[in-house]
Amino acid sequence: MQLIPGGVCAPLGFKAAGIHAGLKKNGNPDLGLIVSDVPAVAAATYTRNIVQAAPLHISRQHLADGRLQAVIINSGNSNACAPDGEQNALAMCAKTAEALGIPTAQVAVASTGVIGVSMTPKMEKVYAGIETLSGQLSADAPGADAVARSIMTTDLTQKEAAVSLNLGGKTVRIGAIAKGSGMIHPNMGTMLCFITTDAAIAPDLLQQALRRAVDLSFNRISVDGDTSTNDFCLILANGKAETPQITDTGTDYTAFEAALTDLCVYLARAIAADGEGATHLITCNVHSAPDEETATQIAKSVIASSLVKSAIFGRDANWGRILCAAGYSGASFDPELVSVAFASEAGEITVCRNGRGLSFDEDLATKVLTPHEIEIRLDLAQGNAASVCWGCDLTYDYVKINGDYRS
Amino acid sequence: MQLIPGGVCAPLGFKAAGIHAGLKKNGNPDLGLIVSDVPAVAAATYTRNIVQAAPLHISRQHLADGRLQAVIINSGNSNACAPDGEQNALAMCAKTAEALGIPTAQVAVASTGVIGVSMTPKMEKVYAGIETLSGQLSADAPGADAVARSIMTTDLTQKEAAVSLNLGGKTVRIGAIAKGSGMIHPNMGTMLCFITTDAAIAPDLLQQALRRAVDLSFNRISVDGDTSTNDFCLILANGKAETPQITDTGTDYTAFEAALTDLCVYLARAIAADGEGATHLITCNVHSAPDEETATQIAKSVIASSLVKSAIFGRDANWGRILCAAGYSGASFDPELVSVAFASEAGEITVCRNGRGLSFDEDLATKVLTPHEIEIRLDLAQGNAASVCWGCDLTYDYVKINGDYRS
Repeated sequence: MQLIPGGVCAPLGFKAAGIHAGLKKNGNPDLGLIVSDVPAVAAATYTRNIVQAAPLHISRQHLADGRLQAVIINSGNSNACAPDGEQNALAMCAKTAEALGIPTAQVAVASTGVIGVSMTPKMEKVYAGIETLSGQLSADAPGADAVARSIMTTDLTQKEAAVSLNLGGKTVRIGAIAKGSGMIHPNMGTMLCFITTDAAIAPDLLQQALRRAVDLSFNRISVDGDTSTNDFCLILANGKAETPQITDTGTDYTAFEAALTDLCVYLARAIAADGEGATHLITCNVHSAPDEETATQIAKSVIASSLVKSAIFGRDANWGRILCAAGYSGASFDPELVSVAFASEAGEITVCRNGRGLSFDEDLATKVLTPHEIEIRLDLAQGNAASVCWGCDLTYDYVKINGDYRS
Repeated sequence: MQLIPGGVCAPLGFKAAGIHAGLKKNGNPDLGLIVSDVPAVAAATYTRNIVQAAPLHISRQHLADGRLQAVIINSGNSNACAPDGEQNALAMCAKTAEALGIPTAQVAVASTGVIGVSMTPKMEKVYAGIETLSGQLSADAPGADAVARSIMTTDLTQKEAAVSLNLGGKTVRIGAIAKGSGMIHPNMGTMLCFITTDAAIAPDLLQQALRRAVDLSFNRISVDGDTSTNDFCLILANGKAETPQITDTGTDYTAFEAALTDLCVYLARAIAADGEGATHLITCNVHSAPDEETATQIAKSVIASSLVKSAIFGRDANWGRILCAAGYSGASFDPELVSVAFASEAGEITVCRNGRGLSFDEDLATKVLTPHEIEIRLDLAQGNAASVCWGCDLTYDYVKINGDYRS
């Protein structure tokens, strides 16, 4: 993966801005805008939660023709289950369109924050904010950084990245920002993620590449098992790199999908690492599985287990909980063949072989479980497929953060 | 429900004992025995986790003929994923049979504690303990209390109860003990629960009544979403009340099943209330649902949500998380019709109507969320079915207990 600076402004022909408009009490940035110089091919994935926020309804309508030019995003209020939700979400698109001089249907909208509170009392501030944003749009890092900060809620880290790849002798760039720290257990959607690219690509292939990238990244992380009402991952491809349009699943498509997947995995790991209260990033690597789905089911069950997460917090090599979580994952496998190991930059230790516990050095285990990044490896010895999922530990601070989130 | 004293010794013809045999380092009771004076009709439910502990394999074999006379139970070691697991589980049955002068196949065995540690180094202590137990069997409360204490792990409260009912003019009794505090998310099985009755009932009807009772009780609680490898619920019916055998699903069967269900619900609530680190018992009551399954799916998803559980710990009426958890439950319903209310002995407050947030008195909400028992009510306004599930809040102490369970 060739990381480059610039976030969502790294691709040619994109501008961004972010400000504090007044939705958050603490004065942090809460309104952001990303704009393409020209209408772009667009694709998206949405939460599978049947309770969906109003902005998703509106954005889905505006994406119906597969083209968008801008996205307006607020934090501090999710506009889910809130009075006048659709009206306010549509008004945000209309105001943005007016400020930019483009059609309302070319603007997507996304929101994140508390559920169930009407945005109506704050709409004047949002309108004023949109005016300000449209005057501050920047094609450089400051604009990209500002929009990345504006979508943060309980996030401790700003999540942005960009990559470049070569298509037919020319350079193409993909940039992205993401947010997410709690209510993270995406199901076929993701927490908020906005991706820009200057590649030229047919709409159906853009959707296909995004779907695959999301399945291998955001759909493989969990912080707390709660699938949000607002998950939304959007990509805009404006063709400004002037490469030939990707119209089949040949070499260029494969390279594009691979780069997009790398970028999404990078951000998914960043979301898991910044899970509310987290002190460890946990990677669960299931290999020698009969098929990828079995491996994924098991890996996802392990990283979602409260008992596994608490054990990692306590640096306790309690592998029985790992095998237990694999056992209730719904996947079909023979537990009598499974081996379990822990690994990190501090070393590696195998604690279970053929479904039975090994005597192991507890001091070494504690040492292996001390660094920030911990890997749990399950060898199913039942095939050649593999899968990786990411999560974080469960700590006192998760409870603290979520015991009184609204105040 | 007519509660009576005596626990598993309340029914006629049952004796019990419990001691510290040496499996736990802290000196707490860790070995228990329940014996019927005569061979009893037996039925059981088991965990659906595909990783199942060795004692479950052995007990299932001994239950094949539908008759048992005794059950030997240890805490301090789950004998799951442990070397020589089946051999040691069978040896516990054989030793118990020898001490009681009954066939080995008439003895069931169950274990709870850490996963993956061989019992072999402790088997001499277990054998000596079984000898001691067989000499201390009591048909009265001290025996019942002792066995109830011997199956506790992180449990703070001893869980036992007994009920009486009238069958054909005669009194029948049902007694039970249960344990469970963590790794509680039973799926068609339960944590450890042992039930005795002096009713006479045909084996298939006993199994049917137990299945229904477990579905309405232990399968409706969650502490941490983790389905154990050792869940096991066993009932012995010895006919000592000398009532006519229940051989059809008539009035007597209905009365028996209802009493058994009441007893199991009583213990299930006790397990949820004693969830690791819990400060609140949470009841989620979903009503006006299209069918019972929909209501149960939603109620179970709500009580299992880490975000809902953290909010209740913080006495935060963050109902958006409740609707969110309902939305990802997998149940099909119209979120636009749903109302949400909180209730407790301190009052009741409706916070969402027709899928939209209401303005509500935050001080009253905090007051309603202060008592130990909190009820979450979802009115789906989509039918006449209902379901109730039970859980507990997520606290700092859950993380503390599970960050270093093994030491």
